[in-house]
Amino acid sequence: MTSTVNKPATRGRLTGSMSEERLDEILALFEQRRLGYSLDAPFYTDRDIFAADMEGIFGKHWVFAGSLAEVPEPGDYITVDFGPYSLIVLHNDEGGVNVLHNVCRHRGARVLTESSGTTGNMVCGYHSWTYDQEGNLVHASAPGEVDFNKGCFALKRAHSRVVAGLIFVSMAAEPPEDFDEVAKIFEPYLGPHEISKTKVAYQQQLIEEGNWKLVMENNRECYHCDGHPELACSLFPTWGLTEETVPTHLADVWQRNLTAESDLRWRCERYGLPYEVIEELDTRVQGFRISREPLDGDGESFSASGRRLSKKLLGDLRDFRLGRCSMHLQPNSWFHFLGDHIITFSAFPVSPGQTLVRTTWLVADDAVEGVDYDLDELTHTWKQTNIQDKDFVELCQRGASSPAYEPGPYMKSEYQVEAFINWYVQRMKEHLA
Amino acid sequence: MTSTVNKPATRGRLTGSMSEERLDEILALFEQRRLGYSLDAPFYTDRDIFAADMEGIFGKHWVFAGSLAEVPEPGDYITVDFGPYSLIVLHNDEGGVNVLHNVCRHRGARVLTESSGTTGNMVCGYHSWTYDQEGNLVHASAPGEVDFNKGCFALKRAHSRVVAGLIFVSMAAEPPEDFDEVAKIFEPYLGPHEISKTKVAYQQQLIEEGNWKLVMENNRECYHCDGHPELACSLFPTWGLTEETVPTHLADVWQRNLTAESDLRWRCERYGLPYEVIEELDTRVQGFRISREPLDGDGESFSASGRRLSKKLLGDLRDFRLGRCSMHLQPNSWFHFLGDHIITFSAFPVSPGQTLVRTTWLVADDAVEGVDYDLDELTHTWKQTNIQDKDFVELCQRGASSPAYEPGPYMKSEYQVEAFINWYVQRMKEHLA
Amino acid sequence: MTSTVNKPATRGRLTGSMSEERLDEILALFEQRRLGYSLDAPFYTDRDIFAADMEGIFGKHWVFAGSLAEVPEPGDYITVDFGPYSLIVLHNDEGGVNVLHNVCRHRGARVLTESSGTTGNMVCGYHSWTYDQEGNLVHASAPGEVDFNKGCFALKRAHSRVVAGLIFVSMAAEPPEDFDEVAKIFEPYLGPHEISKTKVAYQQQLIEEGNWKLVMENNRECYHCDGHPELACSLFPTWGLTEETVPTHLADVWQRNLTAESDLRWRCERYGLPYEVIEELDTRVQGFRISREPLDGDGESFSASGRRLSKKLLGDLRDFRLGRCSMHLQPNSWFHFLGDHIITFSAFPVSPGQTLVRTTWLVADDAVEGVDYDLDELTHTWKQTNIQDKDFVELCQRGASSPAYEPGPYMKSEYQVEAFINWYVQRMKEHLA
Repeated sequence: MTSTVNKPATRGRLTGSMSEERLDEILALFEQRRLGYSLDAPFYTDRDIFAADMEGIFGKHWVFAGSLAEVPEPGDYITVDFGPYSLIVLHNDEGGVNVLHNVCRHRGARVLTESSGTTGNMVCGYHSWTYDQEGNLVHASAPGEVDFNKGCFALKRAHSRVVAGLIFVSMAAEPPEDFDEVAKIFEPYLGPHEISKTKVAYQQQLIEEGNWKLVMENNRECYHCDGHPELACSLFPTWGLTEETVPTHLADVWQRNLTAESDLRWRCERYGLPYEVIEELDTRVQGFRISREPLDGDGESFSASGRRLSKKLLGDLRDFRLGRCSMHLQPNSWFHFLGDHIITFSAFPVSPGQTLVRTTWLVADDAVEGVDYDLDELTHTWKQTNIQDKDFVELCQRGASSPAYEPGPYMKSEYQVEAFINWYVQRMKEHLA
Repeated sequence: MTSTVNKPATRGRLTGSMSEERLDEILALFEQRRLGYSLDAPFYTDRDIFAADMEGIFGKHWVFAGSLAEVPEPGDYITVDFGPYSLIVLHNDEGGVNVLHNVCRHRGARVLTESSGTTGNMVCGYHSWTYDQEGNLVHASAPGEVDFNKGCFALKRAHSRVVAGLIFVSMAAEPPEDFDEVAKIFEPYLGPHEISKTKVAYQQQLIEEGNWKLVMENNRECYHCDGHPELACSLFPTWGLTEETVPTHLADVWQRNLTAESDLRWRCERYGLPYEVIEELDTRVQGFRISREPLDGDGESFSASGRRLSKKLLGDLRDFRLGRCSMHLQPNSWFHFLGDHIITFSAFPVSPGQTLVRTTWLVADDAVEGVDYDLDELTHTWKQTNIQDKDFVELCQRGASSPAYEPGPYMKSEYQVEAFINWYVQRMKEHLA
Repeated sequence: MTSTVNKPATRGRLTGSMSEERLDEILALFEQRRLGYSLDAPFYTDRDIFAADMEGIFGKHWVFAGSLAEVPEPGDYITVDFGPYSLIVLHNDEGGVNVLHNVCRHRGARVLTESSGTTGNMVCGYHSWTYDQEGNLVHASAPGEVDFNKGCFALKRAHSRVVAGLIFVSMAAEPPEDFDEVAKIFEPYLGPHEISKTKVAYQQQLIEEGNWKLVMENNRECYHCDGHPELACSLFPTWGLTEETVPTHLADVWQRNLTAESDLRWRCERYGLPYEVIEELDTRVQGFRISREPLDGDGESFSASGRRLSKKLLGDLRDFRLGRCSMHLQPNSWFHFLGDHIITFSAFPVSPGQTLVRTTWLVADDAVEGVDYDLDELTHTWKQTNIQDKDFVELCQRGASSPAYEPGPYMKSEYQVEAFINWYVQRMKEHLA
C-alpha cells in the first residue's frame, strides 16, 4: 500500500479519490483568485471543485433546508437532497425538528422515498428495518437472527437549528459556532412574522443549468433588475445609487424613496420592529445580511401596485405596510418577509452545472385561497423573476465553459456578489489548507 | 516518456489510463473490506472501479449470455452487450455456438446491428467486409486492392461453453478452468428439462439504475421477500428459518414445508433427478449454488395456487410437481427450472450506475400460446418481482452515493449475499495484485 | 504549492487539469500509432484526448465556420459553437467579417443567444453591457459607477479570413501562416461560383453520435459508397480504380468516365476554369485537396439524371455542365461547388462521442423556390447521404468502445482517410511535444 492511500484526515470521502497533485492545483486556483473579479472558469465547471464545494461548504456549514410551515405537525417530514446528501427533516413529537440521513444502516437504501409526508416510525422498504423519530433502530428482525445489536445501527443524525421557523441543517461533526450569534441577530427581525402560523401556498422547484455559485451570485445584486420587469414595480429604480450619484431624471423617484424609507422607519419604531441594515456577508463564518426596506407603490407587497396579495396579516403584525424584511444567508438561501406573505428561497446543488432552486410562498394559516388570496397573483412576480434569473444563470454557465472566458470586474453595485465570493474563497481556503 | 507509460502487463485497456496511485487506492479499498458488511460506497459508484470490474470480472470469468432457445436454428444469432463488450452469439451449421466480437476488423464498425436474427455470412454494413460463421474474413474487395491478406483479419473470437442448453462466454485469453468441473455438477440437474426442446415465450429487458453488484446482492437473499407479494405465494414463508428458530405461529407452515420437501425427494428419487443442495458460492473460481426445492401450494409452478402455468411438460420429465431447480452462478446469472417452464436471468452491466437485467421465459417448443399457456399468467409473478427488485436496487444505489452511507451488517439469512461479495472481492484482489 | 501547478506554457486551459503523467501517456499513444492503420480506440472515446484535440486542432488551426451567404448584409451574424468555444461571426459595416468570442467580459454571459440574426451594437442580456461591431465595450453604466475603464473590456476577437466567400476562423494567438498560400491556390477554383451572389436554400444540422475524427474519416473515402444509392447516381462507379485494375464488367463505365473527363477538361479550358487535382492533405499545416471532376449522367448536378437542380447558373459561369469542384480542408470541412448550387459541410465537435454536422445548400440569390428549384429535389441526395453517413459513423463509434477493437488496415482507396490521420497525428505531436 502506498503512502497516498492514507489521505490526510481533512480529506473527506468526496475528495478522497483525488491525487495530492490535483488538490494542490485546486488550492492554487483559490490562492490565485483576483480580488474584485469573478471566479475562474473551473469554479463553475470542474467536477473536482464541485466535490470540494460539497465537502467544504455544504458538508460543513449551516444550510437552509425549509421552514416549519412545510412540516407543521408532529410526524410531518420533508426529504431534502443536495449534492450527494439526502436528509429527512422531521417534525418530532416534542415539537422539535430531527434531521436524519436518509440512508438505511443495513444495505443503504433510501428509507423515505417521498419528497414530503407524515410518518410515525420510519420503515425502510427493503427489509423493513424500522427507526423511531430519533433515528433509533427499533426493529430489525431477520429469520434466524438472535444476537444482533440494534443499538449500533441508528440512522445518522445531522445537526439542526430552528430560528424564527426556519430550519437549518449541518452535516459537520462540529458545525460553525457563530451561527447562534447570527441567529440572535436576525430572529427579532423575522420572529414577528411567525412562520409557525403560516402555511405553504405554493412551492416551485426549478432546475437551473448552472453552478450553484452562479445562482447565488445572481441573487446578490440588482444591477440586472432591468431584466425583471415584474419585480421592478416593487423595487425603487434608484437601487445602488447615492445622494451624489443619482441622476436628475431620477430625482423624483429618489425623493419618493426617501419618503417611503422615512415612513417605514416610523412604522417600525411604532411597532417595535427592527429595520436597520446589518451586513456581515464575508466578515464571519455565518455570513449574512438583513434589512427592512420599503417597497414602491402602496408599499405592502410584491404586486404591480404594491398592494397586499393576501388579506390576512401574518403573526402579530398590525400593519401591512412594512415593506420587505430581506435576508441573505451564506451559502444557499435568501428570504423576503412581508406583512402579508413570506417567500423562502434555497439553492441546492445537483452537479457542477445544475442547481435546484426551491421557492416557497407562505401565507397566514387561516388565509383561504380564492377568498383571501389569488394564487396566481400571489406568485406572479417571483415566478416570473425566477424564470428570468434561470436564463441569466444559464447564459453565464455556458459562457464559463469557453476558453475565452476570463474573470470580469465587479461593479460597485455588485459588492454583495463580491462579498459572497470573498466568503466562499475564504471558507474553502481554510477547508483545503 | 515516463515509466508510467509502460503499464504492467496485467493492466488491460480499461484500466490502462489510471495512474499507479489510483490503482493502489482501489486495491487498498479491496483490502480494507470489512468482513460481514456490505461494500464501501465507491464499489457501487466509482467509474474506475467499474472499469476494473469489467476487466477483472466480466473480462475474465464465464458470463451467462443466453440459451439455445434464443438461437434454435443454424444461422440464428443474438447480440449480447455488457460493459464495453459487444458479442455475436451464433448457432453455427455444425450445431455448435460461435461467439465473436461484434467489431469489424477494418474500421471497427458493428457488424451485426440487430439484437437477434438469422444470418449466413455476416456482412459489415460499412464497406461490405464479409465474414463466415467462424469469423473468417472471406470477402474484402476494395477498388484497386491486389495483395491484401484476408487471413490476418478474422473477427476476434471469445470462448464459449454450452451446458444443458445454457450458453456461457468468456473474454479471457485463458478462461477459468474449473468451469467444466462445475458444469459437470449442474448438468444432471438441468439437463432433463431439455432447453433444446423449448422456445422463448417472452423476454423482458429492464434497465435498473443501480450497479451490477447491487443487482446480484438483491437476488441472493429472500430477507426482502415481504416486498414480493406475488412471489410469496410460491415460496414457503419459513425461508431462512431452522427447526430451532421457527416461531410458533409458523409451526403449521413449517410442517407443510417439511411434507413438501419429503414429497419432492420421493419424486426426485423415483425419476432419478438430483435434488441435493450443492453450494460453493465463494469457495471456487466458478462460484455457484444449485438445489431443487419445493414450491408452496400445488408445488408445480410460480402461480398463486402453485398450479402449472403451461400444460406441456418439459423435456423427458414425467411429473409437473418438481418444485424449482434453482441455480445461482457468479458473476451474473440465476435460473429457475420447473416442470412446465424455465426462467433465465442475466445481469449485464451498462455503467457504474446502470445494469440491464434480461429475463427469459421458456416453455416446451410445442406449447401453443393461448391454448397451453396464457402469456400474462406465465410471466406475471416474475414480471412483478423484477419490477419490485428494480426499485430495491435503485433505492440502494441512491443511498450509496451519500457520504452518510457506510457498510451495513449482513444478517445470517443474507449469507449468500455475503458469499457473492466474498467471491467478488477475492477475484478482484487476485486480478489487481 | 507543488511544481505541477506551474504547467508548461504550451499547456492550455483545456488540458491544464491533466497530470504530467497523463499527458505523457497521451503523447505516447500518438507516438505509438501504427502507420497504415486506423487510430487506437482512445482517440475516439477518451475525454482527455478530446480536450487535447480542442486545444491542439480546433484551438490552433483554421476552422471553416460558414459562408457569406449566411451573413449577406452588414449587421447579419451567425453564432458558431464547437467544443468549448462560442463565436459570433458578424458581417460588419465595412463589408468585412468580425469574429468575436461570444462571452461577455463582465460576468461571462453569452452575449448573443440566437443562432443567427441581425444586430447593431450587441447588448448582453444580463447587465446591458453593450459592444460595437468591433467588440469594443461602448456602454457599461452601473449605478454609482464613476471611474470604470471600458477600454480594458472589449470582447475577445478571433482571427478570420474570407476566401471565395468562405469564412474561416482561428482561435490561435498566431494562426498557421500557410493558410494564405493555400487560399491563393483554391480561390481561383471557387471564386467563379461567387458565393456572395448566392443565398441559403436550406441548412441541415445533424448531431452524429461519433467522434469528430470518425466524421472526417468517413467523408474522406468512397469505398463505402455502395451505402449511398442516391449519391451513386452522380459518381462514376469506377471510383478508386485505374486503367490496370478496372474489371471487364466496368469497361463501358470506365470509357464513359474518360469521355466525361475529357469533355469537362475541354469546357474548363474554354471558360478558363482550373480543374487539376491539387492534393496536399498531410504535407502541410493547412492540409487540403481540390479538384474538379465530372458527374455521371447529364453531368450538371447531384440529381438522379445528373440534370441541373436549380435553373439559375451561379456567378459568372456560362455552363451548367461543370461537374463538381470538390474541396477537402483539414480539420473540419468539405465542399461541392457545382454550376447550379454549392454545398458546404462543416463538422463541429460537441463531445468525445458527439459531432454536429452542418450542411448548407446555396443557390443563386435570384433563384426562386418553387420556380427555379424544388427544395426537396435540391437537397434529396445529400440529405439521404448524410443520414447514411451518420449511421456509419455511429457504428464505428460503438465499435471503438469495445476492448476487442484494434486498429484496422486502410485500403489503397482509403489513402485520403490515412492522409487525414497522418495530418492529425503530426499536428498533435507538434502541439504536445
